[in-house]
Amino acid sequence: MDRPWILDYDTDNCAIGAAVGIIGEKWTFLVLREVFNGVRRFAEMQRRTQAPRQILSDRLSRLVGQGLLRRVPYQEAGQRSRHEYRLTEKGLDLYPVLVALMEWGDKYALGLDGPAVRLTHRGCGEPVRLGLTCAAGHTVGSAREVTPRPGPGARKIA
Amino acid sequence: MDRPWILDYDTDNCAIGAAVGIIGEKWTFLVLREVFNGVRRFAEMQRRTQAPRQILSDRLSRLVGQGLLRRVPYQEAGQRSRHEYRLTEKGLDLYPVLVALMEWGDKYALGLDGPAVRLTHRGCGEPVRLGLTCAAGHTVGSAREVTPRPGPGARKIA
Repeated sequence: MDRPWILDYDTDNCAIGAAVGIIGEKWTFLVLREVFNGVRRFAEMQRRTQAPRQILSDRLSRLVGQGLLRRVPYQEAGQRSRHEYRLTEKGLDLYPVLVALMEWGDKYALGLDGPAVRLTHRGCGEPVRLGLTCAAGHTVGSAREVTPRPGPGARKIA
Repeated sequence: MDRPWILDYDTDNCAIGAAVGIIGEKWTFLVLREVFNGVRRFAEMQRRTQAPRQILSDRLSRLVGQGLLRRVPYQEAGQRSRHEYRLTEKGLDLYPVLVALMEWGDKYALGLDGPAVRLTHRGCGEPVRLGLTCAAGHTVGSAREVTPRPGPGARKIA
C-alpha cells in the first residue's frame, strides 16, 4: 500500500478531533439523542439515559456552553420555575451524526426485533436514510469510493 | 408541544445507545479516523492521536474484539514481526459516522483556514457529502423534516 499522504500532515486542526472534543462522550450522545427525540426536561432525560444526576447536569451545562442547546424557562402550576433544553441551529446540525450512529447500531448492535425507532419524512411518511453523494450527482457506495485529499487548512508537519 | 411518544418506550434496545457503547469515546473515534485515512500501524497512530500507549493499545484491542478492525501481520527487514490494523466490513460501515462528525467539525469547530481534509469521489474527483433522503427520493433538509416513529423493536415501558 502507498504511504497515506495524511501522515505528512498534523492533526491539530482535524475536524473530527474538534467535533469529538465537544461531543465525543457517551452521555453527551445520549443527551443529544433525547433532545432530538423531543425530550426536553431534566427528569425525563435522567430517567431515560440513566445518567447519574451530576453527570447529566454537567453534560447539559457543557452543551449549553458550547452553544448546542439553549435553556428555556417553563413553569407548571404550583411548582417553581424550571428550564427545559432545546437544540440550537448548531445542535440541530449534529443530526447526521446521530442518524449515522443509529443506522450503524440498527445494522450491527441490535437484537432480532429490529429497530426501536424508524425515521420518516414529515412530508410523505417514507423512511429516511443517510447517504453519500458527490457534487456530480453520483451515489457513493462506501468508504472505498472516497479519496481524502488535503484541504486548505491542511498543515504539513514541520 | 405534544408529549413525545418516545417517552412511553424504553431505551434498552436503542441503536444509538448500542453504537455509542461500542465506539462512543474520544480515543476510539481518533483511532477510527486514522484507519479510515489509511494509517494502519501502531507507532503512527500513537504519534498522530497523541494517545498514551496503554490507551491506544486498549482501544485497538477493543475494536478488534468488537470485529471492527482485524490484525494483519507484517515484517520489515531486520525487525521482528508486527501487525497492522485494517477495517472489517463492520468497521467500514462506520464511515458515515466519521464523515458526519467531520462535516459538523468543518462547519463549527475549525479556524479560518478551512478544512484540513476534503473528501473526493474516487471515480470523478468531485467533493463528497452526506445527505438525508427519503425512499420517495426527496431531499430531507434537516432534522425538522424528520418524524421518529416506533419501529418493530420498540418496547413500551411496563
